Amino acid sequence: MIDLRSDTVTRPTPAMREAMFAAEVGDDVYGEDPTVNRLERDAAELFGREAAIFVPTGTMGNQIAIRLHTQHGQEVICESRAHVMDWEMAMAAAFSGCQLRTVAGQRGILTWERIQQAIGPKLYYRARTGLVCIENTHNMAGGTVTPLAVMREICEGAHAAGLPVHLDGARVFNAAAALGVSVAELTKGCDTVMFCLSKGLGAPAGSMLVGSREAMERARIFRKALGGGMRQVGVLAAAGMIALHEMPARLTDDHANARLLAEAVAAEPNAEIDLDAVETNIVIFNLRGEGDAAAFCAGLKTKGVLASAIGPHSIRFVTHYDVNREACRRAAETVVELLRAS
Amino acid sequence: MIDLRSDTVTRPTPAMREAMFAAEVGDDVYGEDPTVNRLERDAAELFGREAAIFVPTGTMGNQIAIRLHTQHGQEVICESRAHVMDWEMAMAAAFSGCQLRTVAGQRGILTWERIQQAIGPKLYYRARTGLVCIENTHNMAGGTVTPLAVMREICEGAHAAGLPVHLDGARVFNAAAALGVSVAELTKGCDTVMFCLSKGLGAPAGSMLVGSREAMERARIFRKALGGGMRQVGVLAAAGMIALHEMPARLTDDHANARLLAEAVAAEPNAEIDLDAVETNIVIFNLRGEGDAAAFCAGLKTKGVLASAIGPHSIRFVTHYDVNREACRRAAETVVELLRAS
Amino acid sequence: MIDLRSDTVTRPTPAMREAMFAAEVGDDVYGEDPTVNRLERDAAELFGREAAIFVPTGTMGNQIAIRLHTQHGQEVICESRAHVMDWEMAMAAAFSGCQLRTVAGQRGILTWERIQQAIGPKLYYRARTGLVCIENTHNMAGGTVTPLAVMREICEGAHAAGLPVHLDGARVFNAAAALGVSVAELTKGCDTVMFCLSKGLGAPAGSMLVGSREAMERARIFRKALGGGMRQVGVLAAAGMIALHEMPARLTDDHANARLLAEAVAAEPNAEIDLDAVETNIVIFNLRGEGDAAAFCAGLKTKGVLASAIGPHSIRFVTHYDVNREACRRAAETVVELLRAS
Amino acid sequence: MIDLRSDTVTRPTPAMREAMFAAEVGDDVYGEDPTVNRLERDAAELFGREAAIFVPTGTMGNQIAIRLHTQHGQEVICESRAHVMDWEMAMAAAFSGCQLRTVAGQRGILTWERIQQAIGPKLYYRARTGLVCIENTHNMAGGTVTPLAVMREICEGAHAAGLPVHLDGARVFNAAAALGVSVAELTKGCDTVMFCLSKGLGAPAGSMLVGSREAMERARIFRKALGGGMRQVGVLAAAGMIALHEMPARLTDDHANARLLAEAVAAEPNAEIDLDAVETNIVIFNLRGEGDAAAFCAGLKTKGVLASAIGPHSIRFVTHYDVNREACRRAAETVVELLRAS
Repeated sequence: MIDLRSDTVTRPTPAMREAMFAAEVGDDVYGEDPTVNRLERDAAELFGREAAIFVPTGTMGNQIAIRLHTQHGQEVICESRAHVMDWEMAMAAAFSGCQLRTVAGQRGILTWERIQQAIGPKLYYRARTGLVCIENTHNMAGGTVTPLAVMREICEGAHAAGLPVHLDGARVFNAAAALGVSVAELTKGCDTVMFCLSKGLGAPAGSMLVGSREAMERARIFRKALGGGMRQVGVLAAAGMIALHEMPARLTDDHANARLLAEAVAAEPNAEIDLDAVETNIVIFNLRGEGDAAAFCAGLKTKGVLASAIGPHSIRFVTHYDVNREACRRAAETVVELLRAS
Repeated sequence: MIDLRSDTVTRPTPAMREAMFAAEVGDDVYGEDPTVNRLERDAAELFGREAAIFVPTGTMGNQIAIRLHTQHGQEVICESRAHVMDWEMAMAAAFSGCQLRTVAGQRGILTWERIQQAIGPKLYYRARTGLVCIENTHNMAGGTVTPLAVMREICEGAHAAGLPVHLDGARVFNAAAALGVSVAELTKGCDTVMFCLSKGLGAPAGSMLVGSREAMERARIFRKALGGGMRQVGVLAAAGMIALHEMPARLTDDHANARLLAEAVAAEPNAEIDLDAVETNIVIFNLRGEGDAAAFCAGLKTKGVLASAIGPHSIRFVTHYDVNREACRRAAETVVELLRAS
Repeated sequence: MIDLRSDTVTRPTPAMREAMFAAEVGDDVYGEDPTVNRLERDAAELFGREAAIFVPTGTMGNQIAIRLHTQHGQEVICESRAHVMDWEMAMAAAFSGCQLRTVAGQRGILTWERIQQAIGPKLYYRARTGLVCIENTHNMAGGTVTPLAVMREICEGAHAAGLPVHLDGARVFNAAAALGVSVAELTKGCDTVMFCLSKGLGAPAGSMLVGSREAMERARIFRKALGGGMRQVGVLAAAGMIALHEMPARLTDDHANARLLAEAVAAEPNAEIDLDAVETNIVIFNLRGEGDAAAFCAGLKTKGVLASAIGPHSIRFVTHYDVNREACRRAAETVVELLRAS
Repeated sequence: MIDLRSDTVTRPTPAMREAMFAAEVGDDVYGEDPTVNRLERDAAELFGREAAIFVPTGTMGNQIAIRLHTQHGQEVICESRAHVMDWEMAMAAAFSGCQLRTVAGQRGILTWERIQQAIGPKLYYRARTGLVCIENTHNMAGGTVTPLAVMREICEGAHAAGLPVHLDGARVFNAAAALGVSVAELTKGCDTVMFCLSKGLGAPAGSMLVGSREAMERARIFRKALGGGMRQVGVLAAAGMIALHEMPARLTDDHANARLLAEAVAAEPNAEIDLDAVETNIVIFNLRGEGDAAAFCAGLKTKGVLASAIGPHSIRFVTHYDVNREACRRAAETVVELLRAS
């Protein structure tokens, strides 16, 4: 099977398995796991922050960040199809008591101008805006990249308006690779950043939240509350160290593979694709006419390719470490074949 | 002062004051206030429902309804500028743990087709849609009316999809008056309806929630929780009885007065107004060019007319019992005068 | 019927009805109701505070206070049978996300020594104590009074430990009357105080929260959120003015009437009563042996006296404005008669 | 260092490390991790249930269970020093909106009789009891064991009262070992059981929740919401398989070691210990007189023994896999030495 449903399906590399086998561990609730401590220190350094905290999932990282920056009864501004809106179980509401106010971005990319219009008036009888949340790359828009200048402008605008900025950077290493800048440079103005060690970086599980020391100390409280305070979790952090240090360099391969797939699809009249939106490792295209995405994916599966139907006519591929160029080439052939037959 | 900021500013009529003076009362937490009991019975009857409950405010009524129909971690579909989204302090999130998923309506009017697209897929890792909430008339869209057929279609569609429907009917008597149907007819398919005794109906305070007996029994629990379980509240219910029985008949006067204001504004080149949207007692218009709404309202105030700036260039008038035709005529003259001078 | 179930059953006095009839009103959401403004100013002055806010119920006042002083995920220390624990619908949890940590008081009276032991250690993986809440008089303990010196000691201890103190003073005028001090004197150290205009003071509905200006401004936000932002609520505030200014002076009558009832019961071998606990307007006694409280109350009812069964063998009387000395004397005779027959 | 602070400090065994290295994994959010699936199947079977779910921590397992069985605004009955009360960050309130109503047990052991008295009356204006939560063994009471008959009685009583029962069985294998019964037998009546693979069973991280198929399907939703939906978490589940299948048999060694420590302490006049409470792997004792627990632990640390000060005069040891009999003997000698010197 060539599994292109998501980069979440990556399996740990041999180096990660060895690191897990050999990991030096301790009780992380007491702050005594040396591997976790190293990972947190390295992540903070790589992002140019004071501190970092390991969390089991990106969802927990984002939700801790929302909780950190807001009060119950406030609003959080995010993009219309943001992960925090669509895929985090309404926890901004259920855990942080906050209302998401969505703003449609172009290809998922917000601008300060659009965000600004969503900030509520300062009346006591109106919920106050408490946080701006951006997502880079933007998953549901197809892995699109918010450029450095736009990131800066949003952060400056938000801070001038007294609002903190959280970056859902689940795939921020993809964004940095696409832009050719460091993650530190790209995320400079953000008050907190969450990024995933799993997904494109290949760790079996785990994400990081980075920010100020004070924020990370409070994050530890909320991680414990959410049930994320694991004990000898250095076994996961050991794989995370490989993910953090060795995997980012190869993301450009995934991007090239996505491009290959996208261009193959673009040549087919039965498919509709915005090639400009294919900037990283995600390819989204629509079946023209009455084409049924779920049926198409079922067809692909019988031919050894897994993809996700993310709308009635909409299909998504995500390239990653476990699918090399050759496999992507075969996947592209299979897709083309099926498109022509449909 | 001619106060057209909102119909919330109406003062109790002499008949209401007399009714409050003479009200027979008891302890309503124990269900022993005869005036409240009568009001609840009459409201239920007027709406063709099994039961009703008195609540201090429309916000409490809406929030009880959202709590009633949902579970924490679900989604509620509503219009983009719905009162539950913009003016209820994010309580769908903060009290019910629900995420609002907004759908833009045309002049605030939703259709089943639009709503349907906002219902989430049934995946365990995705927040489930729990409720459809509509608003008729729609306040921020300018008192626009969702027609009977559209109401029906939404209710039928939602029920077929297994979703309950709550109507924020703060001004549902205005909608019914505009359509020339009874509130019972208009709201038939809705599982619960909240309507206000204050606003256009003139009571000093109080709203009602109507629905099934079982729903209203649960509503009583949430009213108590929210701190709405008042004791000898028959004094307010007595005014509410007048509001319910005597005031709806005169709402067409308010509509005619709004029309008068709207047409005066429409004739002015400095103002921009969608006359088709002026269906009830609300008039919204924009100042053309660089016109500053707040400054314009301040100008009106010095000339004895109060209006609300609801956007940078956007002004709202609401007609009501305390401003008669003559006063509206004078207000219209003042507005025109100021528009011409600007 | 002689209704001694609770002082919540009091009906508005003629003076209150007249005040409601004549009340000058405005839109209180906009801060324009002159009667509410006067009531808030007078309440603040009487308690020696910067500001006050009118709320529909005591429950709303207490829950706003808890929300004001805490963060979600904290603990609130209160007495084991406190009203906030037993009769406020778990809203400390459901609205403020706080855990109540109960401490048993002697006759409901807490001391700083006991409270201190309930403060949690300052570990990041432990919920932090956020508030101390006391109740004076203590309802479920039988209207018992926390003396001035104990109040002071609790406030000083809490403040030294960095904790605010909220007083559930639903019946704080009864406490002040019993102690012969002013409410300002009695509640001096408390950061916020909630007291009821209904109950012993006889208003049909309404309570007040008093505190610093900054706290009351935030309280206004939470009152709106809870659905307590009523419009022309000066009609209730007008009755509240009478309650605040004219009714406290007569509470000693209620206390004397409670004493009369208590002493009558104390003389009966079939009843068990702690006479020392009868300090204000509440009388609680137990039926000896297998005596069934619910059956006893049913028996009383057939003889024209209403009381509350608050436990399997436990009965509560509450004296108030609507039951004068003569009626209490008759009630006492009826109780004695029934006790002897049981 | 002989680390007796908690059994949470155990490090993965060599067999666990090998299992993690070789683990077959998949994406568990999609239900495709074969090792997780095996672990869940085996856990369900061992407890005689329909289904099980892997969770990162015991806290998450308990909080999912509370959420599963209750509605916001309800009460959960638990023991006064229960883990869900003292060490789970007030999440019963902050996530499930529930109020904990605590009942003091003897040595932490609840009985149905005591629980029954804490169930609230069924009045609409009173928070309803929604769940009974028991803890076996009881951590803060010193690892005490609720016997089989008492477990049965509580479950039968609760079910007859319409209440579900959740068992916080973080150390239920210790309880079963002490009683000489299977965990299936011991937990039969409980609707859900949480147990830890870490702690005494030695896995680096991870706990399980077991129950009905329907309950576990809903648990999956709440696990995702809390951020516990990890991807290739089979690496942890592989260690969990060893914990589940190979480690329970050796818990009696830990119990014998705890006994050894307890008896050494009991012989010392400067210490006070309830030997009858030492039933499993936890030993709690008090320093007599003015003895300062924190200082005593600091003294122990300088001599190579780690223990926890759990009160001003109270010290806790927990025996586990990483501390063998010889090490416990040395620890006992050190403790005795220090007690005599104090």
